[in-house]
Amino acid sequence: MLQKVLIANRGEIAVRIIRACAEMGILSVAVHTDADRHALHVKKADEAHSVGSDPLAGYLNPHRLVNLALETGCDAIHPGYGFLSENAEFAEICSRRGIRFIGPPAAVIRRMGDKTEARRTMQRAGIPVVPGSEGNLAGLDEALRLAETIGYPVMLKATSGGGGRGIRRCDDAQALRQNYQRVVSEATKAFGRAEVFLEKCIVDPRHIEVQILADRHGNVIHLFERDCSIQRRNQKLIEIAPSPQLDDDQRRTVCELAVEAARAVGYENAGTVEFLFDRDGRCYFMEMNTRVQVEHTITETITGVDIVEEQIRIASGLPLRYRQEEIQRRGYAMQFRINAEDPRNDFLPSFGRITRYYAPGGPGVRTDTAIYTGYDVPPYYDSLIAKLIVWAMSWDDAIARGRRALDDMEISGIKTTRTYYQQILRSEAFQQGRFDTGFVERHPELLRYSEKRDKAHVATAIAAAIAAHAGL
Amino acid sequence: MLQKVLIANRGEIAVRIIRACAEMGILSVAVHTDADRHALHVKKADEAHSVGSDPLAGYLNPHRLVNLALETGCDAIHPGYGFLSENAEFAEICSRRGIRFIGPPAAVIRRMGDKTEARRTMQRAGIPVVPGSEGNLAGLDEALRLAETIGYPVMLKATSGGGGRGIRRCDDAQALRQNYQRVVSEATKAFGRAEVFLEKCIVDPRHIEVQILADRHGNVIHLFERDCSIQRRNQKLIEIAPSPQLDDDQRRTVCELAVEAARAVGYENAGTVEFLFDRDGRCYFMEMNTRVQVEHTITETITGVDIVEEQIRIASGLPLRYRQEEIQRRGYAMQFRINAEDPRNDFLPSFGRITRYYAPGGPGVRTDTAIYTGYDVPPYYDSLIAKLIVWAMSWDDAIARGRRALDDMEISGIKTTRTYYQQILRSEAFQQGRFDTGFVERHPELLRYSEKRDKAHVATAIAAAIAAHAGL
Repeated sequence: MLQKVLIANRGEIAVRIIRACAEMGILSVAVHTDADRHALHVKKADEAHSVGSDPLAGYLNPHRLVNLALETGCDAIHPGYGFLSENAEFAEICSRRGIRFIGPPAAVIRRMGDKTEARRTMQRAGIPVVPGSEGNLAGLDEALRLAETIGYPVMLKATSGGGGRGIRRCDDAQALRQNYQRVVSEATKAFGRAEVFLEKCIVDPRHIEVQILADRHGNVIHLFERDCSIQRRNQKLIEIAPSPQLDDDQRRTVCELAVEAARAVGYENAGTVEFLFDRDGRCYFMEMNTRVQVEHTITETITGVDIVEEQIRIASGLPLRYRQEEIQRRGYAMQFRINAEDPRNDFLPSFGRITRYYAPGGPGVRTDTAIYTGYDVPPYYDSLIAKLIVWAMSWDDAIARGRRALDDMEISGIKTTRTYYQQILRSEAFQQGRFDTGFVERHPELLRYSEKRDKAHVATAIAAAIAAHAGL
Repeated sequence: MLQKVLIANRGEIAVRIIRACAEMGILSVAVHTDADRHALHVKKADEAHSVGSDPLAGYLNPHRLVNLALETGCDAIHPGYGFLSENAEFAEICSRRGIRFIGPPAAVIRRMGDKTEARRTMQRAGIPVVPGSEGNLAGLDEALRLAETIGYPVMLKATSGGGGRGIRRCDDAQALRQNYQRVVSEATKAFGRAEVFLEKCIVDPRHIEVQILADRHGNVIHLFERDCSIQRRNQKLIEIAPSPQLDDDQRRTVCELAVEAARAVGYENAGTVEFLFDRDGRCYFMEMNTRVQVEHTITETITGVDIVEEQIRIASGLPLRYRQEEIQRRGYAMQFRINAEDPRNDFLPSFGRITRYYAPGGPGVRTDTAIYTGYDVPPYYDSLIAKLIVWAMSWDDAIARGRRALDDMEISGIKTTRTYYQQILRSEAFQQGRFDTGFVERHPELLRYSEKRDKAHVATAIAAAIAAHAGL
């Protein structure tokens, strides 16, 4: 078993990994830039080290992080999500210098990071992919020919793209002509590679992804699916497990496809296979994420499996603790990404001091966050500041619990998406389990609400003010 | 379904009930004395009303509470635990005045409150009881004769007793002679009734209790057992579900006995049947608690059933939502009662201002509490200020998670039992699942520890101080 792990990340996921290490008796080493010196992950880890004054560079420098891991006597690095988590070179440097990278082998990261290569791999394995180009496009002419064959609308995508960048939808030949050079330039500028490819556009799909665990001994299991269709501009807002939109046959099919996909690429560690479901219920491989996801929490909640702990065990060379038939799901879990953004102002980022934070409690509620009363949310990072996860036995009860827990949660001093999620929970379409990736855009009326300062908030804010005044 | 519920309680259980009401779309009415006017239940409820300046009287006055329920348009009262929750007269007044009492019928409360009557009822139903007197003792002579027959040590108990009061252990005839009159006087003084009875003393038993749900339609189910053997002077400290000390046969037996017991008394609503297990694994009925227990939380955690919600549904006349075969348990849950006491100073109560409270988070952690930063713990009430509940798939993982979550939790300003529980988790006997009600007394060495102010606590306390200084 690993003895000491450096966590090459920050925020709630760094705290999440520190907690897993603590429970496993593994020492944890936090890293931080100057902007993060008062961050919770720094306080919770067994050790913390600075990686410089630039707010970002230190989290993105593979050599510096590996050196620090070696200097502090770590035998492994957990990359979390974002930053270097899907950087094949980082995984390679780790392995070359004798540090375990808690994730899949570099070659797998690289293959899944190249979108045309990932498509090809899946096609060979018999996994359905969205109809589109075989590999990269040779030029505009090929794009136009292909689009005629598969039919508009089509998506033009950068081969090395990700996170919603380097993607354009083209509804006809004219649009394709206009966008082609634009996407090529964007791709070159953003990812350093000009290659683009083309896919049929699945209009308003549902985003369904399957959690996979694979060990070094050839065992691959799935932990069921998540429905991440509630998105805004390709950013997930609310995630749900299991999907209320799949029947048992569809669920079995997509979960088995995901296991096949993981086997096909020789996967190892925790990973996610993302699929799109079209209006007729057909599913297509979209991409594979070779890291822990923000929304791994809801899968933990319905299955009881600690995914981060399994990641560490797998990286230690241990076999999976569960066989497929031992994975049972129970009830519904929902995660609300509490972002430091103002939904009523085009989701403008909001940062500054959290003057009050109170975590919700009671049955079926989990919070993962790195904020605390008095914490300054820095402007340099992802806007996700807390994850609120609720669970209940039925879909209706999960919605009721989500409403209650969002109400219970107090975050003062900055704007967040908390109240907006209350609006979504009140929407009839959501309550009936009918939503796709177009939901947020189709419902601008949900953005019209007032931040009601309810009784509880005002009263506890007063109590806090009294305490502060008393010099506590 | 009920529309509006008055909660005749305070503290964490009042907050727990308010949350259940909120999730069910039921309005909640809080009551409070002057000492509790800044309490969290007052802030969280839809309405809050004063029941006077005396810190206790208002919570103990049946007529005042029922009047208030009627004045505020409530159709029901939830009594929580403690206070009037097992007061048959209160249940009667409610029913006479057209208010639903969320609990069993008054007659059942009365029969189970009379310990000799409860014993007789169970004996008739074929439930094993601790060998002892048939009904109340006629006098000392009968006590001495009976003690010779069943063998010393014996327990002398007040028939109307409870909560560890009015009980004496007698190791021989001399002790029985000395204690007899003493227990009679105590019983008269404390409970207004002189009756006493005698039972064989089960030395260092394990305390195993079974959670029951029964509706008005004749359905009775159990939600498995809890092991509450970690006690100090009959006060539970750590509760565990399921018991790591029972095998499947013992579990099945005790759970079925509890269902039979509930049927035998015509039980309705949520209730708990308590048993003692002796060193040879024989089990005996001890008593039935006709209310929600402090430790209902761990049963909710392993079964997924919301017990407070079921209480309200049952009181509304609805049938149980689950059949026995639908009740599945998963993993192990453990509850730590965070008491405002100083374990190293003979558990002396500690009260005053909470200068900092930070709830633990992450997977498998639940908190039920009514404290917050700036809250003043009043000296008048039960010392229980927070319940920390952890869950994991295995016993060992539950211990590891408990240790981590206790470490994660921050309560500053007063003394609590938090660190003492860390000591218990480190004990080998506990880790091996070997403990009985004598555990705490047999391990005085666990009380020798230092309150290590770790890095995280100091650092966040500093941040809070900075925030306070900034006038937030």
